[in-house]
Amino acid sequence: MKSTRFQLDELAQLVQGESIGQSTLTLKGLASLGQAQSDQIAFVNGDKYLAEALASKAGALIVTEALKNQLSDQHHNFIVVKNPYLAFAILTHIFEAKVLKRGIESTAQIDPSAIISDTAYIGHYVVIGENCVVGEDSIIQSHVKIDDGVEIGRHCFIDSHVTITGYSKLADRVRIHANTVIGGEGFGFAPYQGKWNRIAQLGSVRIGNDVRIGSNCSVDRGALDDTILEDGVIIDNLVQIAHNVHIGANTAIAAKSGIAGSTTIGKNCILAGGVGVVGHITITDNVTITGMSMVSKSISEAGSYSSGTGQFETNHWKRTVVRLRQLADVPLTKLVKQIDHMQTQIESIESTLKSRK
Amino acid sequence: MKSTRFQLDELAQLVQGESIGQSTLTLKGLASLGQAQSDQIAFVNGDKYLAEALASKAGALIVTEALKNQLSDQHHNFIVVKNPYLAFAILTHIFEAKVLKRGIESTAQIDPSAIISDTAYIGHYVVIGENCVVGEDSIIQSHVKIDDGVEIGRHCFIDSHVTITGYSKLADRVRIHANTVIGGEGFGFAPYQGKWNRIAQLGSVRIGNDVRIGSNCSVDRGALDDTILEDGVIIDNLVQIAHNVHIGANTAIAAKSGIAGSTTIGKNCILAGGVGVVGHITITDNVTITGMSMVSKSISEAGSYSSGTGQFETNHWKRTVVRLRQLADVPLTKLVKQIDHMQTQIESIESTLKSRK
Amino acid sequence: MKSTRFQLDELAQLVQGESIGQSTLTLKGLASLGQAQSDQIAFVNGDKYLAEALASKAGALIVTEALKNQLSDQHHNFIVVKNPYLAFAILTHIFEAKVLKRGIESTAQIDPSAIISDTAYIGHYVVIGENCVVGEDSIIQSHVKIDDGVEIGRHCFIDSHVTITGYSKLADRVRIHANTVIGGEGFGFAPYQGKWNRIAQLGSVRIGNDVRIGSNCSVDRGALDDTILEDGVIIDNLVQIAHNVHIGANTAIAAKSGIAGSTTIGKNCILAGGVGVVGHITITDNVTITGMSMVSKSISEAGSYSSGTGQFETNHWKRTVVRLRQLADVPLTKLVKQIDHMQTQIESIESTLKSRK
Repeated sequence: MKSTRFQLDELAQLVQGESIGQSTLTLKGLASLGQAQSDQIAFVNGDKYLAEALASKAGALIVTEALKNQLSDQHHNFIVVKNPYLAFAILTHIFEAKVLKRGIESTAQIDPSAIISDTAYIGHYVVIGENCVVGEDSIIQSHVKIDDGVEIGRHCFIDSHVTITGYSKLADRVRIHANTVIGGEGFGFAPYQGKWNRIAQLGSVRIGNDVRIGSNCSVDRGALDDTILEDGVIIDNLVQIAHNVHIGANTAIAAKSGIAGSTTIGKNCILAGGVGVVGHITITDNVTITGMSMVSKSISEAGSYSSGTGQFETNHWKRTVVRLRQLADVPLTKLVKQIDHMQTQIESIESTLKSRK
Repeated sequence: MKSTRFQLDELAQLVQGESIGQSTLTLKGLASLGQAQSDQIAFVNGDKYLAEALASKAGALIVTEALKNQLSDQHHNFIVVKNPYLAFAILTHIFEAKVLKRGIESTAQIDPSAIISDTAYIGHYVVIGENCVVGEDSIIQSHVKIDDGVEIGRHCFIDSHVTITGYSKLADRVRIHANTVIGGEGFGFAPYQGKWNRIAQLGSVRIGNDVRIGSNCSVDRGALDDTILEDGVIIDNLVQIAHNVHIGANTAIAAKSGIAGSTTIGKNCILAGGVGVVGHITITDNVTITGMSMVSKSISEAGSYSSGTGQFETNHWKRTVVRLRQLADVPLTKLVKQIDHMQTQIESIESTLKSRK
Repeated sequence: MKSTRFQLDELAQLVQGESIGQSTLTLKGLASLGQAQSDQIAFVNGDKYLAEALASKAGALIVTEALKNQLSDQHHNFIVVKNPYLAFAILTHIFEAKVLKRGIESTAQIDPSAIISDTAYIGHYVVIGENCVVGEDSIIQSHVKIDDGVEIGRHCFIDSHVTITGYSKLADRVRIHANTVIGGEGFGFAPYQGKWNRIAQLGSVRIGNDVRIGSNCSVDRGALDDTILEDGVIIDNLVQIAHNVHIGANTAIAAKSGIAGSTTIGKNCILAGGVGVVGHITITDNVTITGMSMVSKSISEAGSYSSGTGQFETNHWKRTVVRLRQLADVPLTKLVKQIDHMQTQIESIESTLKSRK
């Protein structure tokens, strides 16, 4: 895909590592251990990949000192670092295809009141409304809609078909992937006489620096106050962030999760895939929610929480659900006590019987 | 965001309430109790917000008579109504930024056979196919695709990047948010000799008056008959409505829910977030399904149904799942009876022993 | 919707069936048993639809020989086949509205380096980047974004607002429905010093022949290796396929499912709606996962697996969850043994008492 070429020692320098072996070896790309060819470099993410690393045809390996010693019979070219995964993460950027275009495509429709940096790129068929701002070096891909009053900071990347509306404000280095909607109308209705009366959503969305949002996500604007994603939040695909949600810095949310309205999530949390969080609750910092769990109450202590169940064989599961339907009427704790008590009674009886023998 | 200004008594009149205090007070917007400034009005949604209301810097408060009496030491400007939440809902529309544009943007591609009302707005890069209709005062935002034969009623709002296809018919005052797909092909395949044979979907989608659909939703067209959303249905973001689903009037469906094919849901139902409903079943009117539950069988009685589990600490949950895996082989109901019976036996033995003492 | 007309014997020939009755009967469409009129044909999918078939006003019925005999008092025009559902699937294509346009709309933006077949259709406002390929008879609907290096085979159908990026390669007869994103950036981050370091995703997506993907799906490109969907895979709406997932031939995935990164799913599997599969596991061929289940571990044996729970009445469910929270501390298997043992003890005591009477 790319014809970028680097020498082993150049790559080592980029990750502050030590190059071992043929320092002028030319490398054309990164690859996985299994797929790598002699002109590619791969990384070894711990001992459990040793066998794969030994068998790899990679021209060079990114390793720890310890791993290098275990591999040096089979391999001779290494970059030695403390954290091979981090080094790999850094090198991916070297080999990435980047959008180098700058300027505004002739087909973009930009309101005269909008302020677009000279170093930004505005793709084909982009529509930008009144009083918008697009900062330096930001890339707006084709077909993006930036509605009135939206502001986008510097070094942002907004992929095709994204809709940004509701006067949303994005800080710097924000990445939003294709077909995501930022600032859509929150789901607010006042029930009255059997009908739903729509509540116009007057709040906005504020997105901090270095936030990353995947494709096909919906981040709604607030009813009155704003929906807020703090710096460093990362969000996968198909995630729902309802109105007035507040997500703390560096929290990660995996695909298909949803956060209901007015919920606050702390910093450095991790929500695994398919997690649901109900509205109007608070989750503290450093909380992990495992896959497909529902958070139905506030969480005030850091830690890991779950309610998602892994698979059973279907026949086993069906019999389990039969028991689950009986469970409500089984006073488990009381029964355990009763059984203990009966055991004592039986032992007492046996002892009585023995004594009377 | 807006420079709309109203006097307190004007706002009171709009919600058929009584203005108390400085009737000519100028208010520039609605805000939450916590964020409101002296030129903004806030609403108090019941006693549990009293403390927040007392501390609020809002210039005026929307309250009930009872709430007013509890707040009048700290606040002097009120709108008194029976239902503050409803009054708030009504006032949001006054302060909302509305699309006032009318006419057809020069870049829209409209088939000559389409009938577009003179009072509609057709945004940039909209594509409208053969024999389409767009009614009076409907707003079609940029990049919308209205495929052949689609009809849109009056006072509708269709946000950017929506795709409407499959000859769908929308009635009046329908709102569809960004990047949603209406009338996409239903997921119908006939398995034959190990392959999936696609069934072309010949039905359509019919959407009633006052229906609201969020962003990134998919509403598929029917296989032969139509998929139907009756009047007043409201749907949040990222919701899947499969082919031939029929949803009764005023039913509300929260984000990330999905309804499988040919299922009928009654009127005035509420599906909370992340609910799944299997195909080919019927749910009667006035049913509530709580968050992340699965509806696997028809529901013929109004009421509330659940199967979503709130979070446990992960270690507690793991031990619970260990027990769940044992549960199938534990005859709970029988055991309870057996324990009762054993208790009786033990008591009988004890009594015998006593009598023989 | 269409004015296509066929005679009964023409339709019979298309499905290799036998026409019975008025072979020249003119039929204008397919319809369901309940909606069909005298100029339409319906199909009877087994004995459970007999009553509906007897009451149907359809001009002709697609049936098995056995069904025909049961219906011939009320109906006189039939197409007799072995598999009415398959015959119906075939006939839907006859009555389907097809895109017959060919050529490139004037508003499409196509990089000069792209190779577009003369028999392809490129809709309004499509953007096609450098070095792309679109094969014979492929239909690219309006507003599609085909990013640099993407290749699309022959007879494909790509609906509006689809984004294809990441150098993805699609084979022949691939259908992708509206607003789906193929080749978006995988969710890969290396945590380091409390921050998430983005891993640029250097892999791609490879999609086999006859793959079908619904609307609003996200199929991410691989980190280093490619994400792969083999021939004949069918995917419903709002589905997440993470980076480096590999899905075997003819596997079907229903709406709202999600597959986490680097997971391999075998051939001929069926994932029902709302299923979640964790990352880095392997599921063998011929596995069925029932609705809203989570697959948390590899599956090495073909069969059916579950963990989704059908609905309870909410009060019943709440009491069930109370018991679930006690369950971890109830040593079920041990208790059952203990109860058995106590029963034996009691019987032994009773027998002792009896012998001493």
